[in-house]
This record gives sequence, structure tokens and C-alpha cells, in this order.
Amino acid sequence: MRSVFYISDHTGITTEKLGSALLSKFPEAKFRNESFPFANSPAKISQALLKVRNRFMVEGKPPIIISSVINPELRQLLHVDYAVNLDFFDAFLGRLEEALGANAVLHPISGVHSIGNEESYNNRIDAIHYSMENDDGVSSKHYDDADIIIVGVSRVGKTPTSIYLAVNYGIKVANYPLAEVDLHSDNLPKILQPYRQKLFGLSIEAPRLHSIRSHRLPNSKYSQLNTCMNEIQSAERIFTHCEIPFLNTSHKSIEEISVAIMQVVKLKRQF
Amino acid sequence: MRSVFYISDHTGITTEKLGSALLSKFPEAKFRNESFPFANSPAKISQALLKVRNRFMVEGKPPIIISSVINPELRQLLHVDYAVNLDFFDAFLGRLEEALGANAVLHPISGVHSIGNEESYNNRIDAIHYSMENDDGVSSKHYDDADIIIVGVSRVGKTPTSIYLAVNYGIKVANYPLAEVDLHSDNLPKILQPYRQKLFGLSIEAPRLHSIRSHRLPNSKYSQLNTCMNEIQSAERIFTHCEIPFLNTSHKSIEEISVAIMQVVKLKRQF
Repeated sequence: MRSVFYISDHTGITTEKLGSALLSKFPEAKFRNESFPFANSPAKISQALLKVRNRFMVEGKPPIIISSVINPELRQLLHVDYAVNLDFFDAFLGRLEEALGANAVLHPISGVHSIGNEESYNNRIDAIHYSMENDDGVSSKHYDDADIIIVGVSRVGKTPTSIYLAVNYGIKVANYPLAEVDLHSDNLPKILQPYRQKLFGLSIEAPRLHSIRSHRLPNSKYSQLNTCMNEIQSAERIFTHCEIPFLNTSHKSIEEISVAIMQVVKLKRQF
Repeated sequence: MRSVFYISDHTGITTEKLGSALLSKFPEAKFRNESFPFANSPAKISQALLKVRNRFMVEGKPPIIISSVINPELRQLLHVDYAVNLDFFDAFLGRLEEALGANAVLHPISGVHSIGNEESYNNRIDAIHYSMENDDGVSSKHYDDADIIIVGVSRVGKTPTSIYLAVNYGIKVANYPLAEVDLHSDNLPKILQPYRQKLFGLSIEAPRLHSIRSHRLPNSKYSQLNTCMNEIQSAERIFTHCEIPFLNTSHKSIEEISVAIMQVVKLKRQF
């Protein structure tokens, strides 16, 4: 068991993501994680280091500090001999200064997850409310405002993807569930026809949909493998016939689906 | 204008976050960004490098490649003499191998944003649906299942925070709006009383709330500065009287609020 400390003078969200990406490449090792976000003063850094030092005493092996500390004086404090310190600014800022021929400006401290520009931040909040209010086809009256409308059968992944795109990229996403009545035709439901250019389809493998739906409503017609197969076939027929781009979500995470959509429809992040 | 290329053999989400954190420290420079996610074959890497090279020819300055490519053979391809390459695995994997006394296992390629463990992934999807269904106090019948219930006046930031926590951390978050009828008392609304241990309050400065509400409903009683002041005072009185931890969201982003809440209530990420 090796102790890992995430220390950041801001939220530390990105640092933790990157840290877990690195640590996941050592599947044999076991890690015990502790996080110190908002460590933006010498006192808070010292408090974190006290814990690091204690862990070193107990375990006899130097803990790993994965950090993103913008303030250079605070960052310096993390260079201790009882821990291995991987800091993102240490690693890249110097090389970037050299490449750009300019000094980095490190004050005031604000991170990539700060509020930043107020207008674009408000747009992001609006996008979240928009996407919640336009979830699951409840109404089409705001489809003119949508950046994208996600279409697919029930439980294919429309809602999580919509919400992820809105929360993380400030994109206004509506989503529309293809219901049984929509699936009898080769054409789009009337309500969607004016918005063909904004549509993106999600599909899935039948066994995976069967498993997801069974988790929700076991032993129902809705969750039967046969129902899933028929619905998926009909949905894909519509996508193909109407030239709607679509992708298969079966083995994809929300993040993978979201990035793939943005790649295809060339959506620009709104902030 | 300097060209920046984000190249990743997975989603590249973390890479782009970290890249923007680094580039934001050079406020004088202007950057033109292009992303190549899922660059997981020699052909896709070459396609990206062709663009990098073209940019170098046009601009006469080596573009900056910010990358996270797990596959070592592909990563090697990015070491070109017409670009500056900052790769996260290059930077840290060696040092981590040394610290852990073990070799990194780089196959099969899967990123921190892969689907990973199916059960925990399903829990995350459930958390998103839970949080959407328990937004805005529509019902309290599922409060027993909540990991946390966020409380505060209208437009203080409850919904975006709830959704962020659910989407990114798989936490089941309900939220309850303190309405006028709730604000006359020093005590919690009856509906919340059994859940005191799960509550977290959000507050805000009156001018900021006034501005947010005016954006939504201009020139209404709802958006008046005076209304905002009174509601906020009453809400904070309830929080204090009932010993509900709370924080001020005025200058905080969704990410900052979310991390601060997790710090206070010691919520563990569910995946």
C-alpha cells in the first residue's frame, strides 16, 4: 500500500484525473489517496506535508505527491526529501516559457475551474438549465435554441450525455426519445423534421440495452431482448434513411460519447 | 498567434484541461487550438502531425503539442523537430516507475474516462437520473436514498452543483429550494427535518443573486435586491440555527463549490 497525496492550490480536479490516469498504469500496486484542494497558503501546505511525513514514518516508503500548485513559493515547499513530488507546473511551465519566449504570469491565482469570464459562465449555467428542461422530449418549443438534439430509444444514454455536454462544455443539448409510435416509420417524427441538421443519434447493442433496461424494469416487455432488438433496428433505419450521424454507445463512457459527438458535429465549446 | 495541438489516444479531456491551465499563465500570448482525440493508430497520429507540420510551415514557429498518448510507440512519433511536445506520460511515467520500483503496464489502452468497472459505472448513471428526478424539491419520497441534499433560495446554484456532483462523481444529490413559506421560520421545513445530517446549504451575496435573477426575470419582485437580501438573511438564519454547514457561492464556479462541499461533508467519490 502506497500513500498518494493530491495537493492543489485550486480545486485539484484536473490533477486528480491525471494522477489516476498515471496510477492506473500500475495495476499491481495498491494506493491510498488523500486530497488537499485549495491549499493556497503556507499553513495549508504545511498541514498537508505533516500528513505526508507521518505516512512516510509509518510506511517507511516516500509517499507520492501529485500536485498542481501555481504559486512558485508554495510549490517550492513541496520539494521535500521524504516524498516523491510530481508537480504539473514544475514539469511543463519552464519548457513552455522557453518555447514561447515569455515568462509565465502566476498571479493572481486562478485555475482552469475558476469562474472566469462572467458572461460565458452564465451561458454555461443557462446551458445546464436548458438541458434539464429539454430532457426526454418533454417539449419541442425551445428546439430552436438547441445547439444539438440527441435522439435515440429509451436508456441508450441520451440523458447522461446531454447533461455532461451542458455541464462541462456549456452546450445547449435537448434530447428526444424515439418511442414506439415513432419507430413504425422510416422518417423522423414530425416534431424533429425542422431540426434535421441539429440531430445526433445514439444506438447500442441489444444485449447491453436489455441489461440496462432489466436493471430498471426487470421482466417487462420494455426490457425484453426482443423488444430491444426491434427498437434499435428501427431507430438505426431512421438514422440511415434520414442521414443522421449516430454512434454506438455500448462500450463507451459518457465522456467518450461526448467527445465523439463533438468531433463529428464540430461543436465548439461555449466557454 | 501560436498553434496548439491537443493529441490524445483517448478522450483528451484531462489533457485539454491541463493544457488550458498551463496556457492561461501566458495572458499576453494568443493561441489557436486544435484537438485530435482518439488518435490511437499510426495513421491518426500521422494525420495530426501533417497539420502540425503545415502550421509550422505557415507560421515559422514550432507549434506546441500537448499530448497524452499511452502507447509508447505512438508517443515516440510525436517527438518531431518541427514542434515542441509536452506529453504527460513522458513527463511522469518514468519517475513514477522509479518511485514504485515497477514497470507501467501500458496495454490495453484505457483512459481515466473509460467505462471501467461496469457496476460503478451503472451507479454513476443512476446518480445522474436520481439527481435530475430529485431536482428543485419536486418530491421528497426518495430523500432516503440521497447522499446529500442541497438547500438554498432560488438561483443560488443548487441545480448546477447537484448535477455536476452526480455527473462527475456519481453522487446522488437531491436539492430543495427554500421558498417564501419556508423562510418565515427559524427551523427547517418539516419535509427536511428527518434528513438534517445530509443537508448542505448554499448562500450568496445579495447583489450577485439580484443580477442572476434579473437575467431570468427582469423587473420582478423576485429579482428585486430587497427580496434577495431578505431571502438570503432568512436562509442563513435557518442554516445557523439548525447547524447546517453552508458556503457562499458568489464568486465560485460550479467546480469550486462542488469540491468545497466534498471537502466539508467528506463525501467519497462513488467510482
